[in-house]
Amino acid sequence: MTVTVIGTGLIGCSLANRLRETGFAQRVIGVDNNEKNLITALQLGWIDSSMVLDEAVKQSNLVIIAIPVDVTRKLLTSILDKLDKQVLMDVGSTKGAICQSVADHKNRGRYVATHPMWGTEKDGPESVVKDAFKGRVAVICEKDRTDADAMQLVEDLYTRIGMQLVYMNAEVHDMHAAYVSHISHIASYALSLTVLEKEKEEDAIFELASGGFESTVRLAKSNPAMWVPIFEQNRENVLDVLNEHITQLRKIKSCLEKENFEYLKELIEDANKIKRILK
Amino acid sequence: MTVTVIGTGLIGCSLANRLRETGFAQRVIGVDNNEKNLITALQLGWIDSSMVLDEAVKQSNLVIIAIPVDVTRKLLTSILDKLDKQVLMDVGSTKGAICQSVADHKNRGRYVATHPMWGTEKDGPESVVKDAFKGRVAVICEKDRTDADAMQLVEDLYTRIGMQLVYMNAEVHDMHAAYVSHISHIASYALSLTVLEKEKEEDAIFELASGGFESTVRLAKSNPAMWVPIFEQNRENVLDVLNEHITQLRKIKSCLEKENFEYLKELIEDANKIKRILK
Repeated sequence: MTVTVIGTGLIGCSLANRLRETGFAQRVIGVDNNEKNLITALQLGWIDSSMVLDEAVKQSNLVIIAIPVDVTRKLLTSILDKLDKQVLMDVGSTKGAICQSVADHKNRGRYVATHPMWGTEKDGPESVVKDAFKGRVAVICEKDRTDADAMQLVEDLYTRIGMQLVYMNAEVHDMHAAYVSHISHIASYALSLTVLEKEKEEDAIFELASGGFESTVRLAKSNPAMWVPIFEQNRENVLDVLNEHITQLRKIKSCLEKENFEYLKELIEDANKIKRILK
Repeated sequence: MTVTVIGTGLIGCSLANRLRETGFAQRVIGVDNNEKNLITALQLGWIDSSMVLDEAVKQSNLVIIAIPVDVTRKLLTSILDKLDKQVLMDVGSTKGAICQSVADHKNRGRYVATHPMWGTEKDGPESVVKDAFKGRVAVICEKDRTDADAMQLVEDLYTRIGMQLVYMNAEVHDMHAAYVSHISHIASYALSLTVLEKEKEEDAIFELASGGFESTVRLAKSNPAMWVPIFEQNRENVLDVLNEHITQLRKIKSCLEKENFEYLKELIEDANKIKRILK
């Protein structure tokens, strides 16, 4: 099968690599406005060739959009316009606005809305992770609006690279994504801003940073070109969970101010309950 | 050399293991009120024997206190009372209140105030990490108030297990520790409380949690018996940095409310600067 990957960044190239490794794709074409990424992806062997969009779509059985969600939304209609029998899927972190944008398109059935729950704080084809996606969940939205053959193809793809499938309404996906992914990024960005503001001695951060700080602030390295559009498209859910987060921090603050360490202990014991869910 | 470890939890046993592995200690005695930990530490071979405190101190060249900082502070004077030529050190995450508590003790010179910047969210002797401490920084406070031979012994110890030494005033240590370690724990506890409050479907957390969420919420599994006393002893510094953290989150919230995505992008670019310091 020939697969086109639009966007030769971390996700597009990690996916391309897995699809060829597992024999799902015999040939991967890369499409990207970013010349540097495209050349690197070719040099590192993640893609077999590069092409302009129209030609790539013509030659492919499957087209995968792996670019920021704002550009995905803009591009989706024009790619659907060009489709014949091909299947189109995206891998964006928001689903509601993207699905809405093509809800009435005559080729809606050829499009599969997905979100594989994998990523790192890095970007670009040089950051590809070899066994990416494996063991994680891929969310598929609006199955009932997708042609059976298109759905089957994408289900086969995710199963082949070792992902578990979960089906969800697009709006429900966005709510869950805000809770378990988007707020983590905001918390981490804010932690980085906090430490950079308070800790004027950068040497101290470098020297004293423990593994705990590093893991908590890791997501703060994530690219704004990817994350600002996610927060924009999922604004209401993100605001809702961010308000809750500030409320929880205020509770902890109030314990410290009032020296109520009994209640602080209770809050921490409640927070510990995450152990039940994530070992 | 014979070393006594008071507290046979994660830190005490990981340290005991490294000290024997590197040949620094020929014999390690464990002391603990927690019978379960003591028995497990013996069974797993982290310590050679267990003893009551007084007897252990008599038989040792070096006594290491590896228990929560509130108990450390209570115990420190009574152990210093018992010392002759032995060296006493602690490994607590706060240093100001602990150092103050023995500032005028006649045996002050035998005590070395340290904080090895290593740990995990787990506890207990069953959570020992084999190559713990290596490559991390050990902070030593109040060097000028410590006998030269005691200081030399502890410097040798940390160097032997692969740690880099950094010398600091106890108050300065506590400030930096609030910035790069204590606030990470608070942010993570609050994130866990947020997600547990908002996400009523625990299956969704389990299924959808990406590596990003897992790393950000990891510290929220940390034991309150250890962390509440840290926050209590370092209350002012922690409140200071927590106020800043809430301010940063409010800035992000305001961007979302006003749909000011240009400024949100700037904030994220600023947060990205942590990359300069932590690769």
